[in-house]
Amino acid sequence: MNLISVEDVHAAAERIKDAAAVRTPLLRCDWADPARPLWLKPENLQPIGAFKIRGAANAIARIPASARANGVVAYSSGNHAQAVAYVAKRFGLRATIVVPENTPTTKIEATRAHGAEVVVVPITDREIVAERLVAERGATLIPPFDHPDVIAGQGTIGLEIAADLPDVEAVLVPVSGGGLASGVATAIKALCPKAAVIGVEPALAGDAAESLAAGHRVRWTDEDRARTIADGLRAAPSDLTFAHLRERVDTIVTVSEEEIRAAVVTLATRARLVAEPSGAVTTAAYLNRTADLPQGRTVAIVSGGNLDQSLLAELLTHPTP
Amino acid sequence: MNLISVEDVHAAAERIKDAAAVRTPLLRCDWADPARPLWLKPENLQPIGAFKIRGAANAIARIPASARANGVVAYSSGNHAQAVAYVAKRFGLRATIVVPENTPTTKIEATRAHGAEVVVVPITDREIVAERLVAERGATLIPPFDHPDVIAGQGTIGLEIAADLPDVEAVLVPVSGGGLASGVATAIKALCPKAAVIGVEPALAGDAAESLAAGHRVRWTDEDRARTIADGLRAAPSDLTFAHLRERVDTIVTVSEEEIRAAVVTLATRARLVAEPSGAVTTAAYLNRTADLPQGRTVAIVSGGNLDQSLLAELLTHPTP
Repeated sequence: MNLISVEDVHAAAERIKDAAAVRTPLLRCDWADPARPLWLKPENLQPIGAFKIRGAANAIARIPASARANGVVAYSSGNHAQAVAYVAKRFGLRATIVVPENTPTTKIEATRAHGAEVVVVPITDREIVAERLVAERGATLIPPFDHPDVIAGQGTIGLEIAADLPDVEAVLVPVSGGGLASGVATAIKALCPKAAVIGVEPALAGDAAESLAAGHRVRWTDEDRARTIADGLRAAPSDLTFAHLRERVDTIVTVSEEEIRAAVVTLATRARLVAEPSGAVTTAAYLNRTADLPQGRTVAIVSGGNLDQSLLAELLTHPTP
Repeated sequence: MNLISVEDVHAAAERIKDAAAVRTPLLRCDWADPARPLWLKPENLQPIGAFKIRGAANAIARIPASARANGVVAYSSGNHAQAVAYVAKRFGLRATIVVPENTPTTKIEATRAHGAEVVVVPITDREIVAERLVAERGATLIPPFDHPDVIAGQGTIGLEIAADLPDVEAVLVPVSGGGLASGVATAIKALCPKAAVIGVEPALAGDAAESLAAGHRVRWTDEDRARTIADGLRAAPSDLTFAHLRERVDTIVTVSEEEIRAAVVTLATRARLVAEPSGAVTTAAYLNRTADLPQGRTVAIVSGGNLDQSLLAELLTHPTP
């Protein structure tokens, strides 16, 4: 299995730097444990509200001119959909997005608002439908995580962390399909070799944690993984991303649904950031998995901020379900 | 009346650059009117949740070594209090903060958490009590806006806007005591002379708008100005700040309470930013005062994000009072 290199990530950074991804700052948290100073990397502030714009931009930038007229297709539980729609529009490409039927309304509407065609299907059919559209139209599939260009694009977050806090000691990164964690770990292990890279998953979708501990991929059903409130973390690693996780991620910790809900509230009230549950898992781990994490300077990646207004209001009113 | 110069603002930027103020990015809003592209300047992401850290840092950095042992005193409706407390702690100075009794609990607790002594008094007594503390202790008063060093510190926001978006055409800035607007207008008019600088006030605390239209300071009572939900915008300009506003701010527009409440919700759901009502007035103006604003590239300063969790939940559930 060929893993991506930090040179691939540097090339991605060069390729996407004018593609509307924001250079997000590190935000120091004055409410953190002094023994483990905490900085947030607020990727919820990207134009589409999530880090996914980085991988989508790198993959779309590499489509050959001859294939651009046929457009792009993506399947996604939400943020990748918006990212592909947004970037495709900037490049002048037609985008068709296949989303599972449990996707939050906010995300479907936002995807349509970027000019994409949205096809809603049962969660288990999304890859098949996307592949059929690719075959029919000659379009290019932009996978949500299982592609070296997507992984390299997400890894640009790691380059920015290394540049802004070169003596970082721990980086906490959400794990779903593993593209973000694979890319970030590639950059951090190359540039800050002393730093630990810790994946974070909801316990209810903890297949990657179990797989990493077992040393091989353990399959959970889609239905099992769909139980978590963190709707962006319901995918499972591929062979490609699992190979990166095994090689470059130190460990994966899991957090409970209650811890995730409380972390959304902490981020809103203490860090003034609206994070979706998937984006709050790293803060949940920081606050609750102390014994499992290294001491020292910690960065938590807040991966996205797209949640329905009613859910945000509910969490602020009743953090405990 | 001597106004500050852009050189004073450049000097402030140099002085505060290691004082923990974040270099906030401009965030492009994909939901904006294409004829008036909108960028947010998210000062709610500063360590104390508001721009006030900039002015406080510049003023405290200039206290002579001989006076430091006597500490600093400030009076404030909240965010300036936290800023002075936070910066004083970093400089190793004792801080005493006088706050009015209608200050949100969040802000009082946050100020104490930064190690400051907090004295709660009726809103009309705060300046008197602060001056008495200064006389008794030989401490240095850090005023919330009526001081050239504070104005110059807040103006560093204008430098960053000019650097990141040199062809900006309109800058929207909240107006209370006028320190932020004075500083930002000084930087923008020097560096981007074609850009309009528009102040924004709640209509219920619209004394500066009325004063600017009249060409002289019109006094509103503290009680009148206390009616707005935007608790950070209840102060009135001083002679010093009003002189800056007259010379360098193009106009001041006002927004309703309902527009402010709705803008808090828009920022949370569309921009993933938690803004307090005072920080949301510029977005309210962008969305509702279209006829009064220039066309073209617009920056709205989101000045702060400290509001009680219960108020944020209420606004998300019932934006209309």
